[in-house]
Amino acid sequence: MMSDQWLEEIQWTQEGLVPAIAQDAASGRVVMFAWMNRESLRKTRETGEAHYWSRSRGKLWHKGEESGHVQKVSSIRIDCDADVVLLGIEQAGGIACHTGRESCFYRELADGGWINKDAVLKDPREIYK
Amino acid sequence: MMSDQWLEEIQWTQEGLVPAIAQDAASGRVVMFAWMNRESLRKTRETGEAHYWSRSRGKLWHKGEESGHVQKVSSIRIDCDADVVLLGIEQAGGIACHTGRESCFYRELADGGWINKDAVLKDPREIYK
Repeated sequence: MMSDQWLEEIQWTQEGLVPAIAQDAASGRVVMFAWMNRESLRKTRETGEAHYWSRSRGKLWHKGEESGHVQKVSSIRIDCDADVVLLGIEQAGGIACHTGRESCFYRELADGGWINKDAVLKDPREIYK
Repeated sequence: MMSDQWLEEIQWTQEGLVPAIAQDAASGRVVMFAWMNRESLRKTRETGEAHYWSRSRGKLWHKGEESGHVQKVSSIRIDCDADVVLLGIEQAGGIACHTGRESCFYRELADGGWINKDAVLKDPREIYK
């Protein structure tokens, strides 16, 4: 069993959270951003699947628990200040976003507004039944 | 002149900030994470170079102002909740981190600890003279 020293080296916020970026390890696409607490990061390492902390629901969130779009984690990195986590992941279904798109970052600034750039791969009504 | 409507669509925190991820547009490497306020995001668009908000110094921060390692911005995206920004950038000098590395995310979890994975490309004493 691994000690929790690696968790203590992280600079948690006052709320006990750390921002986490999920990047598709194969395509390099940044697919989502969320928050983690100690428990979610520990579970991410133990299970090999991304767990986050849902601030809106105030609970541990196993990504894909409803949609099936789990994230298999191949690497866990931290930044120079040890206050941001970067996950290398393999995205089940190729869909990370609840809108049915590959990535949550599907809007790009152009001509003075945010333009949808990415296709919906699956109707959300088919994802969340 | 562009209206600020696109800025108002962003879900700013209570402190008026939004998290920003900088990704090298060519290599796909996530190189850093920082925060932006309205002014820094507006300046980023206007100048084509990344500006952030330094929470520790409490001031606008033109990335590279001291080191010369500016970030030329090729795209600005937001996520589905409009509360995270993703910049596609070209990194001057190929160094984003103040430690002299390409990316701030140079440590990876392995064997129970955080392991340095990336080389220092330039001595920080040569960067910040």
